[in-house]
This record gives sequence, structure tokens and C-alpha cells, in this order.
Amino acid sequence: MKKGRTREIILETATSLFQCQGYHGTGLSQIIEKSGAPKGSIYHYFPNGKEEMALEAINLMRKNVMQKAEADLAEKDNAVEAFQHHMNNIAALFDSKENTGLPIGLIASEIATTNPKLLEACKSAFTGWQSLYADRLEGFGYTKEKAAELSIAINAMIEGGCILSITNQNGQPLRCIAKQMQSLLVQ
Amino acid sequence: MKKGRTREIILETATSLFQCQGYHGTGLSQIIEKSGAPKGSIYHYFPNGKEEMALEAINLMRKNVMQKAEADLAEKDNAVEAFQHHMNNIAALFDSKENTGLPIGLIASEIATTNPKLLEACKSAFTGWQSLYADRLEGFGYTKEKAAELSIAINAMIEGGCILSITNQNGQPLRCIAKQMQSLLVQ
Repeated sequence: MKKGRTREIILETATSLFQCQGYHGTGLSQIIEKSGAPKGSIYHYFPNGKEEMALEAINLMRKNVMQKAEADLAEKDNAVEAFQHHMNNIAALFDSKENTGLPIGLIASEIATTNPKLLEACKSAFTGWQSLYADRLEGFGYTKEKAAELSIAINAMIEGGCILSITNQNGQPLRCIAKQMQSLLVQ
Repeated sequence: MKKGRTREIILETATSLFQCQGYHGTGLSQIIEKSGAPKGSIYHYFPNGKEEMALEAINLMRKNVMQKAEADLAEKDNAVEAFQHHMNNIAALFDSKENTGLPIGLIASEIATTNPKLLEACKSAFTGWQSLYADRLEGFGYTKEKAAELSIAINAMIEGGCILSITNQNGQPLRCIAKQMQSLLVQ
């Protein structure tokens, strides 16, 4: 393992485990084992432990989803096709054997009553994604108010669709949800 | 505590904790403490431990949501109003201080890669809810195929809407999603 990449690899491993098993289900020892990082390095790079790591993982999930959504939504020139394209691309991830988990929603649901700091970071991630969806919808001609409302519904459909795809172990639920954009996004 | 009710109280307490903190975040000691049940009784009533309890909790979540949805959806005589009514009633739960958590979706997301038995029970719960939604939609005049598709989208919107309401600590996201039934359920 390249020394400069150690911190990055630990964080990527932790992020993936938090998405697939949640905050409580992921232990530092599993992160060490899966990342292949030397035991001491985890405490060196994350001296404040699991909470600090989760906070950075939440920000990484936020960034990853944001980049993917930005790219997907830029590829089509109308709202229905753009959001269908994005949802179908997420669906494809769940068709592969590897479970990609639930970004943000899983940690948020687990820690809402116990960890205000992590909850705030989750809230901010959701708001960031919704702002992106709303901006794109405004660009497609929706009013500011309608775009803001739809962005919340789309965010919920993607998060809920991921849960159903995780449970079904394939992308079919998300593809079915993508089809409904036709009526949801009627102007 | 009435003796005959002890098992029921333990299971209700466990169900509520699993919904709010997840499977991994909930320990037997917390269930004992919160339920007020004598320590030994938990092993007496659930000799196979936490997994057995989670399996029964999943079935109780399934039943609770089913009963609530059946009652809500029977109170209105068109699809838009019926599902809005159901979503707004769920939203109201999140306006109270008490977090009611995420039924099924939280446990499903945590254990999808590690516990096939619990995952199967979660899958069956989602399918049960979707069948109820689809039946009701067919009753409102949608074709069998359209009703089945919409039932998946509605299930995702409610699960995702609960996540956003948990994160926002109020029912506003679910109320916003309820509004979108107007366009989603266009016939």
C-alpha cells in the first residue's frame, strides 16, 4: 500500500462498510482488516475514532452521489429522461453481486436520536442533493417552488428505491420507480 | 407487569428500538432495561436470542403498518386522497418529539449481506404492503399492471419519506411527498 494513499483507502473502506452495514454494525477491526491498513495507522489518521471517521464517510457519500448525479443529469436534455437515466444507472449497481448499500439514509436512521453531529452532516448531504435536483429541474423549466417540492420526492424515491433494491438484491424496484417519472414530472 | 403480557411488552419494546436504532445498535440489555421485564424472562420467551426477536419484530412491524394502511386507505374514496391521507398520517407521527423510526427498511439495509433469514422476512413485509397498495389501486380503477408498478413507487416514497422525516425531525418531507400523489396517480 502506498503510504500517501493509506488514509484515503481506510476512509473508502469505512464508507463502503457504513453504507452496507450501518454505523453500529461496522467495527474498527473490520475496517482495519478490509482495508489492509496497518493497525496503528487507523488511530494515527483518525485519532478521534469511529465518529470522526463516520463524519468524513458521510461527506464522502455526499460527494460521490453528487458527482454521479451531476454527470447523469447533464447527459439528457429533458427532465424525465435525465432522472430516469440517473435512477437506471443506480439500479444497475444493484444488479451486480456486490451490495452497494444505502448512502446517508442508513446512518441517518440509526443515529437520529443519539448523535446530533452525525445527523446534521446527513441532513446537509440530503439538502445538497436536493438542491442539485432542484437546480436541474429549474433548468428544465419548472418553477422554483415546484422544483423544490419535486426534489424532495425524487430524493425519497431514490433512497426508498435503494432500500427495495437492497432487499430484492437487484435493480428492478429502482427501474420501476424510474418509469413513474413520466407522470411525476408532468409539467 | 402482568405476567401474560410480559412477552408482548418485550417484543413491542424490541420492535420500537429496532425501528429507531437498527438491529446492530440495539442490545438485549437495553431491551431488558426499557421493557422493565425481569432479566431472565427475555431468555425464557426468546430462547434463540436476538435474531429470533428481530424476526418477530419484523413481523410485528409488517402487521402494524398493514393495519394502519388498511384503515387509512379505506377512509377516502379516490386514490389521490386515500394515499395522501395515509402519508399525512405518517407525517404527523414525525411531528411529535418521539422518533418513530423506519419500519423494515432500516433492518433490511443493515443485514442484507449477512442474514438471509431476516432479509427474507423484510422482503415478505415489503411485498405484503405493496400487495395492499396495489389491491386498493385496482379498486380505484387502475389496471393490474399499473397498480403493481405504482405500489412499488409508493412504498419507496413512504420509506424514503420516513428517512427524510427522521433526518429533519419533522413530518414536512412526507407532507411534501403526499402532495405529489396528484401527478403520480394521474389516470
